[in-house]
Amino acid sequence: MEQSFLAYLKGRTRQLPQVQVGIGDDAAVIAAPASELIACTDQIVDGVDFESEKQDLADIGFKAMAINLSDIAAMGAVADSALVTLTLPKTDSTQVAGEVYEGILEAAKQYGVAIAGGDITTYEGPLAISITLLGHVPDGGPAWLRSGAVEGDVVLASGSFGGSLRGRHLRPEPRIELATEVREIATVHAAIDVSDGLSLDLDRMCATSGIGVELDVDAIPIHPDAIALSEKSGRNAFQHAWSDGEDFELLLSVTPSDAELLLAADLPAKLTAIGKIVGRTGLWKKMGTRFERLSPQGYEH
Amino acid sequence: MEQSFLAYLKGRTRQLPQVQVGIGDDAAVIAAPASELIACTDQIVDGVDFESEKQDLADIGFKAMAINLSDIAAMGAVADSALVTLTLPKTDSTQVAGEVYEGILEAAKQYGVAIAGGDITTYEGPLAISITLLGHVPDGGPAWLRSGAVEGDVVLASGSFGGSLRGRHLRPEPRIELATEVREIATVHAAIDVSDGLSLDLDRMCATSGIGVELDVDAIPIHPDAIALSEKSGRNAFQHAWSDGEDFELLLSVTPSDAELLLAADLPAKLTAIGKIVGRTGLWKKMGTRFERLSPQGYEH
Repeated sequence: MEQSFLAYLKGRTRQLPQVQVGIGDDAAVIAAPASELIACTDQIVDGVDFESEKQDLADIGFKAMAINLSDIAAMGAVADSALVTLTLPKTDSTQVAGEVYEGILEAAKQYGVAIAGGDITTYEGPLAISITLLGHVPDGGPAWLRSGAVEGDVVLASGSFGGSLRGRHLRPEPRIELATEVREIATVHAAIDVSDGLSLDLDRMCATSGIGVELDVDAIPIHPDAIALSEKSGRNAFQHAWSDGEDFELLLSVTPSDAELLLAADLPAKLTAIGKIVGRTGLWKKMGTRFERLSPQGYEH
Repeated sequence: MEQSFLAYLKGRTRQLPQVQVGIGDDAAVIAAPASELIACTDQIVDGVDFESEKQDLADIGFKAMAINLSDIAAMGAVADSALVTLTLPKTDSTQVAGEVYEGILEAAKQYGVAIAGGDITTYEGPLAISITLLGHVPDGGPAWLRSGAVEGDVVLASGSFGGSLRGRHLRPEPRIELATEVREIATVHAAIDVSDGLSLDLDRMCATSGIGVELDVDAIPIHPDAIALSEKSGRNAFQHAWSDGEDFELLLSVTPSDAELLLAADLPAKLTAIGKIVGRTGLWKKMGTRFERLSPQGYEH
């Protein structure tokens, strides 16, 4: 099916100036960014990351793009082009590829990404979608790493957390636009996106930066989905916000004065100050004059 | 297993200047090439492209890199960095990942490629390896496309063809070095690498260029493996050379004067003139004063 599907796909993909040669040659020819190139790759697999029996295939395609776009946003970058690898069960492979691509193309259009190339294989196994995104930092400035948080910084979180399994996880909203607008206002010392759980990903950023965070636990924004889920799950809404994952929000470490500027700005997603960076490693909660250590929880691969 | 394996891998991968931030952040930060970016992605799957029961896992990892390097060579480019996605059966996944990576790292070292990032998932399915390679054209000149062959060009083939299944397909030698040296001598109008069969890939290059080729059939270099295989297969050595595939040689379309220069040069792989580009589309053989149409054969995905 590969040749004929690629011909169909070539007709469906928009020609964007960043890709000079796309689908149909041995490799793609892409305009190199003026500064650094940002590249990430993430795959999702049926039975592990989604259930094709219960979910819309276009949603799954959209999600495969969105999780990568969220990684690009966490670098303070924008995405330019994508290479898409589909591994398809033999049954109805052309139809499955077509439906998955509907979601991929929708995300590509929404975020200005050109499909530069890819690969398709049919096999005896579950549907898997692997996407590589290539992008750049819009102002040519440095990418946001996990490693730059320093003592005294304020930790800001976008949006709210928990209960994404009620449906938000099907159509994540990667914070590309937010990241671009934040860059115009502030210098971000460190950033990460929350894919595996607020506390787990925050802990990763802290560990990579070699610092810790004193959390204002009551300030952590809890999503209404976390509250709704807590009514059935036997866990409270905070626990859902703390550990659920697939929120695809951003955590940013900035100076207090940059935090003030950002909190006062009109941005595409609400930011909330949830804690401050401290020298001692780990996640901490102030209890009167003492500190209690909090344990990170989430989805460990 | 992902976090601990990535920590191990980070220690094993060499730090190369082209990758500023590699494994361990949300995305990689890579030095952008001065001119165009060349990007390709190709996957191999157990039971479709290899048999893990019969083959060495390091060979399979090497091959996953080599097939992509061959695509980069066919663009007249060199590879700088790789993003590696492994989809692993649950049984012995860490050991399998380690053995596959031995071959990936060997190819990376041999061809100067930095491992910039990747993804690992374990699932209920066969081993699959998907690699995205990023590279650039060494002299900043245009990439070689399939589409530029013009009437009067000479078609050159590197190496020889057929019978790769006897073992060469396990350790392909992508023609990166050849491509770089060819660039220094000649202007290549069109190029393709032979992965699915000499005649099939030649036909693809001709179709994309909108021309045909009059072949000097007797000049097509036949690999000794094709002769050895023909003794058992019931097909003759030429048929193997014509259609076997996985030769990973290059086909180049150049002017007659550039062909002369290249044929006289001391290159990393022998080049042979196998035909000339003609206006009528398709593959042709001259029989006295008439032309016989040859049908392309090979591995159709």
